[in-house]
Amino acid sequence: MKADTQQQDLSLTRAASLCALGLATMLAASLHAKPPVTAAKPVSAPTTAAVLAAAKPGDWRALDPQNTLYLELSGGRVVIELAPAFAPNHIANIKALAREKYYDGLAIVRAQDNYVVQMNDPDYENEAARKPIKTAKRSLPPEFTVAWDAKIPFTRLPDPDGYAPETGFSDGFAAARDMKAQRTWLTHCYGTVGVGRLNPVDSGGGPELYVVIGTPPRQLDRNVTVVGRVVKGIELLSTLPRGTGPYSLYEKPEQRAPIQRIRVAADVPENERVALEVLRTDTPTFEAYVESRRNHREEWYAVAAGHIDVCNVEVPVRAAPGAR
Amino acid sequence: MKADTQQQDLSLTRAASLCALGLATMLAASLHAKPPVTAAKPVSAPTTAAVLAAAKPGDWRALDPQNTLYLELSGGRVVIELAPAFAPNHIANIKALAREKYYDGLAIVRAQDNYVVQMNDPDYENEAARKPIKTAKRSLPPEFTVAWDAKIPFTRLPDPDGYAPETGFSDGFAAARDMKAQRTWLTHCYGTVGVGRLNPVDSGGGPELYVVIGTPPRQLDRNVTVVGRVVKGIELLSTLPRGTGPYSLYEKPEQRAPIQRIRVAADVPENERVALEVLRTDTPTFEAYVESRRNHREEWYAVAAGHIDVCNVEVPVRAAPGAR
Repeated sequence: MKADTQQQDLSLTRAASLCALGLATMLAASLHAKPPVTAAKPVSAPTTAAVLAAAKPGDWRALDPQNTLYLELSGGRVVIELAPAFAPNHIANIKALAREKYYDGLAIVRAQDNYVVQMNDPDYENEAARKPIKTAKRSLPPEFTVAWDAKIPFTRLPDPDGYAPETGFSDGFAAARDMKAQRTWLTHCYGTVGVGRLNPVDSGGGPELYVVIGTPPRQLDRNVTVVGRVVKGIELLSTLPRGTGPYSLYEKPEQRAPIQRIRVAADVPENERVALEVLRTDTPTFEAYVESRRNHREEWYAVAAGHIDVCNVEVPVRAAPGAR
Repeated sequence: MKADTQQQDLSLTRAASLCALGLATMLAASLHAKPPVTAAKPVSAPTTAAVLAAAKPGDWRALDPQNTLYLELSGGRVVIELAPAFAPNHIANIKALAREKYYDGLAIVRAQDNYVVQMNDPDYENEAARKPIKTAKRSLPPEFTVAWDAKIPFTRLPDPDGYAPETGFSDGFAAARDMKAQRTWLTHCYGTVGVGRLNPVDSGGGPELYVVIGTPPRQLDRNVTVVGRVVKGIELLSTLPRGTGPYSLYEKPEQRAPIQRIRVAADVPENERVALEVLRTDTPTFEAYVESRRNHREEWYAVAAGHIDVCNVEVPVRAAPGAR
């Protein structure tokens, strides 16, 4: 069993959150962990697995089908949760684009290792062949940041961040705020979904979306409108072959990953939806979860970090209990 | 050309470093960038592309074949640069393992999205079938950190880091140091290569290596012996299908990615080596490179971050000029 233990150990840090859809297995294994043995680690607090095992049903919330997108690829479904508090106009437009079936038949045209995958109309450059937009808009004024509003939930992280005055979580989304400027925005983490644009800040609108598949490109924060994050199926994007053309575009049409369709979950028959829950980020359970990852208590760890970056928290997602 | 511009823009941040083997194209396109137009951005300093275009031959150094590994997969070659100043004993052992052909025929047995791929002897759990180690060692005392020594190069980054008192670069490797404790270590970034271990800190030695393919798992810093980083071919690892078993192990033997062999570059005939150069990290050019990424000057950026994390720097690698 040695190999098993070893792989378990290296995986504990992310297993409990990222692979939350397989949580039962993780928890079963992790609960066997012995208490920490080194003085460098706090001994009284629970491990990540223990925090999640002790979470009550009310610590989880279901996805809102009106703010959930299903991106259907040949390999399966990518589920995207939208964050309307941070980009209301873009999200309304993206839903309009989905509802007029604009995205259907487009493709992932670019996959850059350790950066992003990006979808577009492959015929975008050929105006005659370009897919028309019917009722939605091609571009919108930017929503790079929004005005701070006390009604926007914000669970602040205890640690400093180099890119923003404060970071934390808002309804499950990694976020930042600047109380001096009274602005807040979503941060670029693995799985973040944003709106591609040209140089003019008002040139994006939703027809071209990208998803982060590498090191959090925090330098993009406040430069792009972020609309949400992938909560399931990111591996369908992150394992795509990388493009070999300039800017990691695919060089041949057949290399692109076709988008069968994008739908708002609310428009999909209920029995075809996927029932997911996200750990609420405004609860003592979430605070304990963060702390368990700031200072890992699993026996494997010799030293606890005593710090966590906003993109390392990874808000857990699970299949709703009793879901098919 | 609109689409091209857009893709160029989103890609500029990483293109110049990560895709450095295609640098010529990137530079050609990037040099057309106009000066920044917003007051928020410094206007006098060059862009990343301009910094690299102006780099002199002496700003680059060749890989040392004695500290370079070729990991050969069916899809191609992954090139790993080793950092002997930070893990001399483990690196000597890994080279011994490679030289006794221990790795040949092993496999990538685990691929966890946004975390690591990990190699192992698929028969590790079956002692009778397990591949024997001849002259190398299975385990070694840890080299999680090493004593600070003024002979170890260290180009300090100007920005604070949450996980370490200081971060910077040592001979091209992302590193941290604690001058109070007089210790230094390599940080976990995308592409970092480390030594898997069991719970005892002295249970790793090199037979089982992992490579980071996601958000920098900085919580692993000082908990594992880091031996180097992937300088070419990371996409052969990062696009592997993710394992669906516990801890993202592959469930079926045929899902594993077989390792044809690992060789020390010095042991490979010269005409079969790949000639790469790494941007030196102890030069004014590197300082300008870092600054160009702390504060992006490309026209696309509306706001400059004014900060960079050690794992976002991405030390450029290129094909040696004139190499086949």
